[in-house]
Amino acid sequence: MNETTSSRFISIDPKQKPLREVHNLLLSGVSPRPIALVSTISEDGIDNLAPFSFFNAFGANPPYIAFSPAYSGKDGSAKDTLLNLEKIPECVVHAVPFDLIEQVSLASTAYGPELSEFTKAGFETLESEVVRPKRVKNSPFHMECQVEQIIPLGGTKGSGNLVLCRIVRFHVSEAVMDDGKMTPDALDLIGRNGFNYYTRASGAALFTVNKPTGQGMGIDQLPRFVRESSILRGNDLGKLGSLEELPNQDAVQQYINGVRADKPTLKYTKLFLHGMDDLDSNPVQARKDIEIAAKVALNEGDLEFAIHVLMALDDL
Amino acid sequence: MNETTSSRFISIDPKQKPLREVHNLLLSGVSPRPIALVSTISEDGIDNLAPFSFFNAFGANPPYIAFSPAYSGKDGSAKDTLLNLEKIPECVVHAVPFDLIEQVSLASTAYGPELSEFTKAGFETLESEVVRPKRVKNSPFHMECQVEQIIPLGGTKGSGNLVLCRIVRFHVSEAVMDDGKMTPDALDLIGRNGFNYYTRASGAALFTVNKPTGQGMGIDQLPRFVRESSILRGNDLGKLGSLEELPNQDAVQQYINGVRADKPTLKYTKLFLHGMDDLDSNPVQARKDIEIAAKVALNEGDLEFAIHVLMALDDL
Repeated sequence: MNETTSSRFISIDPKQKPLREVHNLLLSGVSPRPIALVSTISEDGIDNLAPFSFFNAFGANPPYIAFSPAYSGKDGSAKDTLLNLEKIPECVVHAVPFDLIEQVSLASTAYGPELSEFTKAGFETLESEVVRPKRVKNSPFHMECQVEQIIPLGGTKGSGNLVLCRIVRFHVSEAVMDDGKMTPDALDLIGRNGFNYYTRASGAALFTVNKPTGQGMGIDQLPRFVRESSILRGNDLGKLGSLEELPNQDAVQQYINGVRADKPTLKYTKLFLHGMDDLDSNPVQARKDIEIAAKVALNEGDLEFAIHVLMALDDL
Repeated sequence: MNETTSSRFISIDPKQKPLREVHNLLLSGVSPRPIALVSTISEDGIDNLAPFSFFNAFGANPPYIAFSPAYSGKDGSAKDTLLNLEKIPECVVHAVPFDLIEQVSLASTAYGPELSEFTKAGFETLESEVVRPKRVKNSPFHMECQVEQIIPLGGTKGSGNLVLCRIVRFHVSEAVMDDGKMTPDALDLIGRNGFNYYTRASGAALFTVNKPTGQGMGIDQLPRFVRESSILRGNDLGKLGSLEELPNQDAVQQYINGVRADKPTLKYTKLFLHGMDDLDSNPVQARKDIEIAAKVALNEGDLEFAIHVLMALDDL
């Protein structure tokens, strides 16, 4: 496995650093963060809407989410969202798709408590079924919530306030439902990174990884030359380690005979046979070729090919 | 503003639905989620490593994160991570870049408590400075944490357990630092979506939005024909609403004279002048052209052009 990252780390004691720097470390290092567009209502009945990216789900039975309105880093003042929740502990939390980012950004600026961000940011409202705050029709996914607990995380300038919410009602737009499922492409949600960066979580940014079904043998079970290969990387080893066991040498020989007999057309099978033929005359290059063939096969999802051809090198 | 999503919503009472369905709603709708690779240690000194995507930062002063190891939805059993934290309330939480996904996926399978996922997933270890659990050298960002509180969120099958952690030490790989900043491209982190989907939060998936510096006038201040345009969408209106005020008709006339005098070369300025010349002969198409010119200008970041040419239509 190639060493790709510098081995050197900078160690930072948050107590020795200014708030701004600690905040930036969290914003960059904990990414991409989902965005909650949170609707609350004041005692006087004025709607409030604000986005938060210190937010996630935390359990499914019953369903819980949490988000964190921080005190101002400058003057320690509380956001309208927090003040409202202390009086009326109910909210609606909405997902934020790419199409809404500019309106959500507008809702994030500090309008006075007498102004509704629904109006300023041009959102249409829907009544909720269980709670008092209104819903944002423009979002495809709404969670009506009862606030169970507000946990102060420091109580000073820049400190968070964990708002722990139990979800009492979900609303899903039919437009993002595909055969009973909310697909990531239909949702087209955005995440928050550090600085001014956002991630659009759809299209080419998406990839899939199948969760191993059984118990993988583990990377520690792979032969040393595989683990220390300069061609195979962590992701390659992870796939190989997810296999249940190594094939024995009979199985390897049989597999290779099969590949030869098939008169291969795939590039990586050709490269492998080329390597096998050169093993005596030019062993260093030949082993390299076979490892590259295995790596390409792993990229194509052909784990069986990769493990068998690598194990062909194990008895040499 | 065009209506792009269906106005129809499906309403779901979580109490009426099986756990699996509620869980899937959260996994799809709360996305993309950052991933915590959490290192803990048992009383017997055996290292454990497991990934969690119910995870985020929650405050900066002092720095807090939280994640949630759920009880099994099948048999209600607790994960090793939770069992370890109940005995030794310390952990190291690591960011997960794209290069580590297959190893992290391997660490997510349930190896017995006597086996270390560091070994099975092929991770290199580093000693921590403050806490007992070890660090994963392969990750570029580590947070050593003291667990302050574990809040059970239901206490039954599939219930979460909110682990609230105070960060006592950060470690940042020099390889992801660029001029004192951790850039999203250097970090190349992944987020978790619903089903088997992940988001790679780097490259073309990234975009930037500048937070409005002052107080935008709000979308409600835009003329009705702009708010109800079939060409301008929510994101366009959001940008226009972030401006501090509308230009008056003198300023608009002066701006347009300036555009004419400049003998424009940009496509959208040409389209605008074309529209202005056709306003009498073909007003419907001409207004459309001018709105399209404004929309293109907004995409190019030329807010000043967009608001002035749109306001040229306001007195007609």
